[in-house]
Formats: sequence, C-alpha cells, structure tokens
Amino acid sequence: MRVLITNDDGIFADGIQELTKAIQKIASVYVVAPDRERSAVGHAITMHHPLRAERVKLFHNPNLPAWAVNGTPSDCVKLAVEAILPERPDIVISGINRGPNLGTDVLYSGTVSAAIEAVISGIPSIAMSLTEVKKPDFSVAAHFAGRLVNLVLEKGLSSDTLLNVNVPGITREEITGVAITRLGTTKYNNEFEQRVDPRGRSYYWMVGEVVELDNGNNTDLSAIRENKIAITPLQFDFTNYKLIKTLENWQIDF
Amino acid sequence: MRVLITNDDGIFADGIQELTKAIQKIASVYVVAPDRERSAVGHAITMHHPLRAERVKLFHNPNLPAWAVNGTPSDCVKLAVEAILPERPDIVISGINRGPNLGTDVLYSGTVSAAIEAVISGIPSIAMSLTEVKKPDFSVAAHFAGRLVNLVLEKGLSSDTLLNVNVPGITREEITGVAITRLGTTKYNNEFEQRVDPRGRSYYWMVGEVVELDNGNNTDLSAIRENKIAITPLQFDFTNYKLIKTLENWQIDF
Repeated sequence: MRVLITNDDGIFADGIQELTKAIQKIASVYVVAPDRERSAVGHAITMHHPLRAERVKLFHNPNLPAWAVNGTPSDCVKLAVEAILPERPDIVISGINRGPNLGTDVLYSGTVSAAIEAVISGIPSIAMSLTEVKKPDFSVAAHFAGRLVNLVLEKGLSSDTLLNVNVPGITREEITGVAITRLGTTKYNNEFEQRVDPRGRSYYWMVGEVVELDNGNNTDLSAIRENKIAITPLQFDFTNYKLIKTLENWQIDF
Repeated sequence: MRVLITNDDGIFADGIQELTKAIQKIASVYVVAPDRERSAVGHAITMHHPLRAERVKLFHNPNLPAWAVNGTPSDCVKLAVEAILPERPDIVISGINRGPNLGTDVLYSGTVSAAIEAVISGIPSIAMSLTEVKKPDFSVAAHFAGRLVNLVLEKGLSSDTLLNVNVPGITREEITGVAITRLGTTKYNNEFEQRVDPRGRSYYWMVGEVVELDNGNNTDLSAIRENKIAITPLQFDFTNYKLIKTLENWQIDF
C-alpha cells in the first residue's frame, strides 16, 4: 500500500510528522507538502509562478521520501501525482491539521482542498484535523488515521467522495464514539478590526468569532461537541439540482 | 437597488469596468475588488497579513465609490460588507471574468468564490464569466448581467444558492439561447512542464489541457458548446448525503 501524505501547516509541522510516523508502520509513505504554512488558502493553485520541489529530510526518519513545495496544498497533490512520485499512491491523507475544519469553514481549508484535489485525480482521500489549537496531541488522531486508511482501502469509497475527519482534542478515554455526519453551518461575527498604522493609514485584521448557525442533529459540529470523532463524506458537485426546475420556469431570455 | 461588484482579474480589468457601466444604469453601484489579478486563488482568505482598502477612481466614472483591496476576491466581499460599505448591498455580482468558469474548474475560481462568500453573508449573488480569453467583448455579458440582476431580485433565490453564469464569447446574434445547467466534470492532462533554471535546478510550470470527462446532457460545458448562455445554480453544502448510510454500516470504532 502506497500513501501520499500532505497538509497545509507546512512539511515540518508536528501534525504531519505524527501522521507520517503512524502511517509508515502500515504502508509505504511519500510526503509532499508546502514548505511553509499555507492555511486558509482554499482551493488555490499556482499558475503564475514556477513550482519547485526540494527533497527534504524529516526529523524522525531522514530516509523517508519527502519533498517541500513552494505552493499550496492543492499544488502539492497535483505535482506529486503528475510529476514527483515514481508510482501512483493508493490513497492520499491530508493533515493532521492543527485546528478544526468543520461546517462552512471547509471552504477555506487547505487541508480539505488537498483531499479534494486527490479525488479529482481519481485517488481516494482523507482530510484529518485535530480540533485543538493550543496544545495539540496528535497521537489519537494519528492512530485513528491508520485504522481509517485500512478501512477505506478494504471497503472502497465512491470515486467522487472524500472523508473529512475531525478528532476532538481530548484523550482517547474521553472520546465517546465515531459519528458519520453532515456539514453544519458556521458564520463569523465582527469579522474585522480596524487599526491605524504609524503613518496614519488605516488597515484591517481579520478577526471574528465562529457562530454555529445550524444546531440540528448529526452535524460535524454537534458530534465534536459530544466528544465524538466526526466523519463527514464530502463531494464536490456544487450543483443545486432542486433549483434547476425553478430557474427553468423563469424563462430567461437574453 | 444597491449592487456590490467584485472580480478576480483586478479592479482595473476591462470585464469589471464593462459590468459596472451596465449595472450603474439600473442601480447604485459599489466596487470593491482586488488591486491586482487574483485568479486561481480558490476560496482563499487573508488571515496572516493586514488588509488595506484604497479608494480608487475608475476610468469611466471617477465618482463611483470604488476600493482596491490587497486581498483575494473572498476578502473583498467580506471586507466590503462588514467594514467598507455604508449600507448592505441587495446583491453581489462577481466578474465579468475573462475566461470560462465551467465544470470542476469552479473549485479554483476566485470569481465564483467571491459569489459564494456573498451567499455565506446572506446576500444573493451572481458569478459572471465570458468564455473568450484572447479578444474578449464583454458587452453581451454585461447587458445580460443587468437583466439577470433584475430577475433575481424580483423572483428571489433560495438563500444557499448562487448563479454561476458563463456567456459564450460570440456575438449576440450567434447566441442560441439560455440553458439552466448542472456542472460538468473537467480534468487536466499533462499538467506540468519541467524545466531547468540557469543554475541547474529544476522547476515546474503548471500547463495542462482541459479534458471534459462528462459528456452528458444539460451540463454547463455542453451548453457553451451549443452557443448558449449557461446558468448553473450552485450551493455549497458539500455533504455526500447518500454516503452517510453506507459509512454508518462500516461500524467504525476508534
């Protein structure tokens, strides 16, 4: 089994190192990841400057084939599959992200976009995030990633779908189960803080607090609140099929 | 009626100027757009450096309220709605993009991501693209945008949905109609070209040709091939609901 690992926190982040350690016990691992933090890049790709991939040594295993790329997580997956790797991976894992990727926020997520890029290339994928930001312990999530990789390759996934996994930042004993969920809805309040620079010109910092709009059952947000691991199957046909008929009745001409 | 206009080609691009000219005939227009080209940025947002918004004069109408932002199209919509505009817009139009935003490529589109950001903020929106890149004539698309704005505000759109509009790059007489479509599937072949720099180090350019994978009826891709304007309703709950039951049957523990 061949696994490609990437992330959006950068190739030297703890989350990808812990994930790599866990997965190399069960598979041949390649690591191709951004050379620095690339969070909140969404599904960006690099068209206007050239990409470079440098062979790097990871601390815990200097012999592991690993490349740092001066691009986005989506670039890393594309470049790995099309140009760098000597063989096609069986599965791609993106993460482990330091912080959650839940609800509407998945739109902004480099971690999730790398997993989407894998599915576009016809390779099953998993996005892994740990909800804890300040003192992350990636060991539970890393172990769970190993289990899930085996399951996905054994059972198969439909070719248009990835699994978005969020692991609560608590001990294994505190976790109450695994929930298969839908995406909740999140929104930010008070999004910008205006300041004035030393030259008298104003600028803005994005700040804002997450507000959960959808408090229904069975969302990724509610699962995390219940101390469960949330697994959300995501696809990327954004068509609103229900609305096609409605719009046809508008009888739009030009 | 108040309309916020943005794009991903930059505030001085021809497409946004033509769109602004057409829309200011029927509404109060605000323009908040990136200070330079920001295509293929996907749904990126700027969290790690401060955003600035500079009042600028647009060539055709120096009195129009217009701001150039050093951020992505998504940043522009967030910042406009939350911090810059004196009042909330009734609708957001993103474009007119120079080049198509069709099929799977909408994932990478700054134009579409700005329209998604508007919907997240609770404002209906339209993403407008012209399929012609080399010698774009935006007049037909600009005129059509005006019609569509009126229709959307008259009929209403469900709050989770935007309209992704692609106008073929031909004359008005050559256009054969308006089609309500679903997203097709696109993929790129031979995506990277490897070169060697003057210092002997290799680098990669993203190249690649679009391959249409989905040749079914009623896609945005097929409509454009038939010289029709393609309108695709898009939503952004990416949950694959069909797969939830399947995954529950896996009985995953941790």
